[in-house]
Amino acid sequence: MSTPAESSANLMEAIVSLAKRRGFVFQSSEIYGGYNGFFDFGPLGIELKKNIRDCWWDDMVRRRDDIVGIETSIIMHPKVWQASGHVDGFTDPLVDCKTSKQRYRADQLFFAAVVVDGTTHGYVSALESEDTAGELQTAAEKVKRKQALQGTLAPVEVIEFTEATPEQIPLIPSPATGEPGSLTPPRAFNMMFETNVGALRDGSSVSYLRPETAQGMFVDFKNVVDTGRVKLPFGIAQIGKSFRNEITPRNFIFRSREFEQMEMEYFIHEDADWETAHKEWIQWCWDWLVSIGLPESHLSLFDHEKAKLAFYSRGTTDIMFKYPFGVQELWGIAARGNYDLNQHAKASGKPQEIFDEDSKKKFVPHVIEPAVGVDRIFLAVLAAAYAEEEVTDDKGKTETRTVLRLSPRIAPVKVAVLPLLKNKEVLTTRAKALYKKLQRRFAVFYDEAGAIGRRYRRQDEIGTPWCVTIDFDTIEKEGDTFTLRERDSMAQRRVTEAELFALLDEHVY
Amino acid sequence: MSTPAESSANLMEAIVSLAKRRGFVFQSSEIYGGYNGFFDFGPLGIELKKNIRDCWWDDMVRRRDDIVGIETSIIMHPKVWQASGHVDGFTDPLVDCKTSKQRYRADQLFFAAVVVDGTTHGYVSALESEDTAGELQTAAEKVKRKQALQGTLAPVEVIEFTEATPEQIPLIPSPATGEPGSLTPPRAFNMMFETNVGALRDGSSVSYLRPETAQGMFVDFKNVVDTGRVKLPFGIAQIGKSFRNEITPRNFIFRSREFEQMEMEYFIHEDADWETAHKEWIQWCWDWLVSIGLPESHLSLFDHEKAKLAFYSRGTTDIMFKYPFGVQELWGIAARGNYDLNQHAKASGKPQEIFDEDSKKKFVPHVIEPAVGVDRIFLAVLAAAYAEEEVTDDKGKTETRTVLRLSPRIAPVKVAVLPLLKNKEVLTTRAKALYKKLQRRFAVFYDEAGAIGRRYRRQDEIGTPWCVTIDFDTIEKEGDTFTLRERDSMAQRRVTEAELFALLDEHVY
Repeated sequence: MSTPAESSANLMEAIVSLAKRRGFVFQSSEIYGGYNGFFDFGPLGIELKKNIRDCWWDDMVRRRDDIVGIETSIIMHPKVWQASGHVDGFTDPLVDCKTSKQRYRADQLFFAAVVVDGTTHGYVSALESEDTAGELQTAAEKVKRKQALQGTLAPVEVIEFTEATPEQIPLIPSPATGEPGSLTPPRAFNMMFETNVGALRDGSSVSYLRPETAQGMFVDFKNVVDTGRVKLPFGIAQIGKSFRNEITPRNFIFRSREFEQMEMEYFIHEDADWETAHKEWIQWCWDWLVSIGLPESHLSLFDHEKAKLAFYSRGTTDIMFKYPFGVQELWGIAARGNYDLNQHAKASGKPQEIFDEDSKKKFVPHVIEPAVGVDRIFLAVLAAAYAEEEVTDDKGKTETRTVLRLSPRIAPVKVAVLPLLKNKEVLTTRAKALYKKLQRRFAVFYDEAGAIGRRYRRQDEIGTPWCVTIDFDTIEKEGDTFTLRERDSMAQRRVTEAELFALLDEHVY
Repeated sequence: MSTPAESSANLMEAIVSLAKRRGFVFQSSEIYGGYNGFFDFGPLGIELKKNIRDCWWDDMVRRRDDIVGIETSIIMHPKVWQASGHVDGFTDPLVDCKTSKQRYRADQLFFAAVVVDGTTHGYVSALESEDTAGELQTAAEKVKRKQALQGTLAPVEVIEFTEATPEQIPLIPSPATGEPGSLTPPRAFNMMFETNVGALRDGSSVSYLRPETAQGMFVDFKNVVDTGRVKLPFGIAQIGKSFRNEITPRNFIFRSREFEQMEMEYFIHEDADWETAHKEWIQWCWDWLVSIGLPESHLSLFDHEKAKLAFYSRGTTDIMFKYPFGVQELWGIAARGNYDLNQHAKASGKPQEIFDEDSKKKFVPHVIEPAVGVDRIFLAVLAAAYAEEEVTDDKGKTETRTVLRLSPRIAPVKVAVLPLLKNKEVLTTRAKALYKKLQRRFAVFYDEAGAIGRRYRRQDEIGTPWCVTIDFDTIEKEGDTFTLRERDSMAQRRVTEAELFALLDEHVY
């Protein structure tokens, strides 16, 4: 029955359009033409975002006995980022096109040789896409036609620009101009935003906006151990903004320059079975995503190749999500050994050990790190929830309804209260009383404008799980019941106020 | 009965010490020696902070029909800060001491002439304090003694360093060295942190960390009007981090370089009675502070002199709080006319008007802006809640108990569940069952370690309003009741599980 937007591109377009139209997400500084890589959350967007954060915090921190929360500053002492390796190593390979002034990430730029009967007749290039190989092949065929080459074009071999030799670089066309000669060799570009703290503006005052929240947990490790009554295994969790000066921000809020992370460092005994702990956390994260409404059909696991990981890393598994623009990382779960604590011990001269009561040993614990972005969950949730359906109204007319099938836990509005008619005071008075009572504990919406069917549609589009209508039966019949209309099934039944509160208590927390 | 720390300085010390000892607030990057002007919130601190934020959001946004929330990016288009006047005018007057390399804010630095029998014999200086005049007088007397001056020392006239003449500046001693000659004339120092967005590092890429959240509401005004179904009067609210490169961060978390704001812009008709709206918002903010537990005895109002306000401002009133270090601003409520929207209309070329259905007119609305810092509320709450009391235990022994009288709405832990004895499984099993049930909806703490009196004290110190003890009466008598112990009165009574939940439902939301 469900007929979502036909293609992936259409789905993405539909989501971005809904997000803007209904006040979920705006471009930052839109009246000034926008600002690349920055976004604002509108009235409904911030409620959805806050609900995602609060659900995570409730499940990760409040309802677990082994995890505590913290909130560290965005600007930390610059030595933190020297010790963590970010000052030296947190770089992306940047390529400039000297003609167009466009910039590319070398690992998102690909090229191939145009080979006809064993002879190379130049190169073609393409940006990373769902079918990079196909694009390069098509471009190679064009070159063959244009140069009127005789013979058989070989299938292209897709090469990342990071692998280009110094001899090849001047021959590879810029994606911006189509002409070779303007691309520079890749250079390391540090993605941390720099600023200056204090009144001086020299090397001594250079500071950074954090590119991740995780280092906060490592730097405050001893403070938490000394004050938090924790014992191994235990975790420290944090939600907060991070900043990365991305060369190519893209895919709406998927890769932006300012974003929000929910990270947790789970400290385990140095002799603990880290593989089991790692697997348990992958499972926990997977289950949590399902609990806020992401369908398992959209989720998959990706194990990073050991050889491509940092030397101290024992293993990283990503939970991947099928976004409209392809399967991409949603949640990374990394087993990081005790590298970070050791680095800070070395740089600060302060031991980062814990005394373990059970083993009577003092050591630097190891860590499992599940790290996820709020904005990526936000986008995944919208993509999975969005549907367009053909429905038939009372009069037998079919129409398309847009519906966001959001979980009641994260839906911005939990219930809409609708008096059947606007001009019947007996209905609006009862409706407003119910609305005010619900409002003390839940996000609710009161709407008396327009036909009841149109009011249902407006709620469907923003993902409100339930509508209650106050009608003449409420007033005239015994029992003070309302019509409860369920978003997904559109089924209706009568409930009392107590039943409505019980329903919300069960599904919203 | 209450005997709080004896002096203000002691109270401040006691709060800072408790904050560190029990995991409320840590210095940022403490293992690297700290970072001036930056702070972290520990496990209990983040719960308290989150509760303050959530209470404000619930009361300001969710429970009102006329206010919507948003969340805008910290880094916005630099044109925003040109239009708002921050690039040119958001400065503090900075004075350098060339000898000591210390920096001062000229408006926090004061001086006076040493006048004996009508003749000036040099100058003295002092930093702003609770008794600047007294300090200057004492310093002048010292100069008189040291120079063995005969005659009568005149009472000093306290002058702000911003008023110093070019002739006086070389004669005013530096507070750091006590010697004249090293202080520079004040220069305008912009307090916005600068960074560069994108791969270039030149003028075209200069950007700023927002020094206030308020401009986000103005820049997104039209987007909210077009999507939010709002009509005048209505407000747009936001909670988020702001950054100011303070010359002299001080008083713990009162004036830091990274802080969190809760701001709201309330838009009213251009012909509306702004004075009434302004007064209503002052009252609302006052009442809200009282609702989260601040005593009215610590609050006062301060009306800014019209002459000292910006030309567009119609009036600003601050709600002041009696901090341990003096009466200082907590919440500013400003009537700003329609200056900001007009500035953005001019700079962006996009009209910032609203069509008012009631008056059938199109105009740029005026605004009332209540702006408060989460960290300042956090500190006020701790200062007002902190008490040391002499109490007598069961055996007639007196001891001092430290108690945080936090409102149940914001207390980090709402209730502690304590089995009377650790080694009686019948007690711990019942206690854990209750704990798990409470944990689904409330922040609770389970503690079975130590004597019950000591466990009560631990909860008193972190402000937990209630403890429930599971004892043998719970198991052996009918009714499944627990001992409920109230923090402030220390009174005990027996309650059922249903009564406990009802109590929490009533006081926590």
